[in-house]
Amino acid sequence: MTAFAPANIALIKYWGKRNNELNLPVTSSLSLSLDKGTHTTVKFATEDAVWLNGNRLGPDDAFTKRLLTFCDRFRDKNCPLHIETVNEIPTAAGFASSSSGFAALVLALNELFGWNHDRKTLSILARLGSGSASRSLYSGFVEWHAGVRDDGLDSYSEPLNIEWPELQIGLVMISDKQKPIDSRMAMRRTVETSTLYKAWPEQVAKDLALMKEALNSKNFTLLGQTAETNALAMHATMAASVPSILYWQPETVATMHKIWQLRNKEGLNIYFTMDAGPNIKLLYEKKDSAAVAELFNLA
Amino acid sequence: MTAFAPANIALIKYWGKRNNELNLPVTSSLSLSLDKGTHTTVKFATEDAVWLNGNRLGPDDAFTKRLLTFCDRFRDKNCPLHIETVNEIPTAAGFASSSSGFAALVLALNELFGWNHDRKTLSILARLGSGSASRSLYSGFVEWHAGVRDDGLDSYSEPLNIEWPELQIGLVMISDKQKPIDSRMAMRRTVETSTLYKAWPEQVAKDLALMKEALNSKNFTLLGQTAETNALAMHATMAASVPSILYWQPETVATMHKIWQLRNKEGLNIYFTMDAGPNIKLLYEKKDSAAVAELFNLA
Repeated sequence: MTAFAPANIALIKYWGKRNNELNLPVTSSLSLSLDKGTHTTVKFATEDAVWLNGNRLGPDDAFTKRLLTFCDRFRDKNCPLHIETVNEIPTAAGFASSSSGFAALVLALNELFGWNHDRKTLSILARLGSGSASRSLYSGFVEWHAGVRDDGLDSYSEPLNIEWPELQIGLVMISDKQKPIDSRMAMRRTVETSTLYKAWPEQVAKDLALMKEALNSKNFTLLGQTAETNALAMHATMAASVPSILYWQPETVATMHKIWQLRNKEGLNIYFTMDAGPNIKLLYEKKDSAAVAELFNLA
Repeated sequence: MTAFAPANIALIKYWGKRNNELNLPVTSSLSLSLDKGTHTTVKFATEDAVWLNGNRLGPDDAFTKRLLTFCDRFRDKNCPLHIETVNEIPTAAGFASSSSGFAALVLALNELFGWNHDRKTLSILARLGSGSASRSLYSGFVEWHAGVRDDGLDSYSEPLNIEWPELQIGLVMISDKQKPIDSRMAMRRTVETSTLYKAWPEQVAKDLALMKEALNSKNFTLLGQTAETNALAMHATMAASVPSILYWQPETVATMHKIWQLRNKEGLNIYFTMDAGPNIKLLYEKKDSAAVAELFNLA
């Protein structure tokens, strides 16, 4: 069975868990799904086999282990699986490939095992693999409700009924190297050691309200400013961790200054967001696509 | 009358005012004075004249206005002054030259006017010119008490009786250009718009206690880690301001990664702190001076 799920870029970030086992978040978050994502094929087989982007991975590979451990939640002991994952975007460089990966896997398993689960349930199952995967069950704008229950059954995503074809996201690739610290560990260290993180729930509550206002009124400037502030605040909580976590590379900072310069001095209405990596995602309107493509080397 | 005051580098930062007129800080702070600083000469004259590093500044220059407005607090209408300031370190590039500047000016005025004020009082007067100047009345380690009074009479600095000749500070100059936003404005914007700033008082309370423990036990690693965390948290509160404030340049981030690499992979016990600018101040022990001088282009 083959399934596709889109990668998603959070405009209001998910950063920090209230339960590390169930990937229950401290706050709600809000994302926009991309056109690109992950294609995953799952078949019954005679032995476990995990393929990533055309290469068979060894049984001790971290990716293999993570996928099979996830599948163990749903299969009997004697049910070997052949899993093929093809990412249209780089794996583990902050381009949210684990979100589309676990969402596509859950969709494929749903077909293979004939669960016939609804999307809400699939969103909850995907969340168990990777928190942000819960948002990749849908295209468009998606809100992941933090929920309050200990069992996580109220922590799921749902689509927002908003169309905004003018809004564009452009990926500026700074580095596609594996991250020095994965987002799971970075999140945990932030929650446990960053004093500034104590103000994060308030930051998100404020930004989430502003973002919904921006979406409802199609106010691009408000959307851009809010997404940028929220992403910077997320990176700020990491910088204040002990030891500090800084995904930014020199080129990241150069790109940030370039964006501010273009916006403030040259009137180009462009903003950015960033995930747990050095790369930058530009936010702009379709009318500025040509200008942006000329100014940035988009991936 | 000529006076000298040292520049000081805060190990626990002053960031944010509870009173903008009187430069009353939200939190206490702790610094180490450098050998270098500012030499200031003040004389009675026939007209106001302000010289900076050998050049006479015009009457509308921001530096001239700031100095003369400060002097207006202490002089009659008909008392023109000739003020000569020589900074041994670059002005307004985050090297704390305003701290030594106002401290030296207050010391020179104390002589000129024959006030005979004690250091505590001079510390309070210097604070009115620039908050961190209150710490530049002393050499060595200095604590500036935030105080709680509205009139600021309990917001002054005092020296800590600690000798630590092994501790070194090295300045890595990234840029000596004028800052895009001065620290006074940056501080204000942070207090007014940064949600993460709400956790700053707790950050300082924790770091100040750790720093005192480090000073009392001469624990260099604790000193370095605490100073670095505190500086990063300060910059983090700025990054989360609206609009964001980022003094870091690409070279700043490259230097930070280089320091972490040296510390974590090569065992060099080196830390850093940063003020409101792109430059980096290395913290290390005298025994590592030669290694540090070889690895970094120290100013």
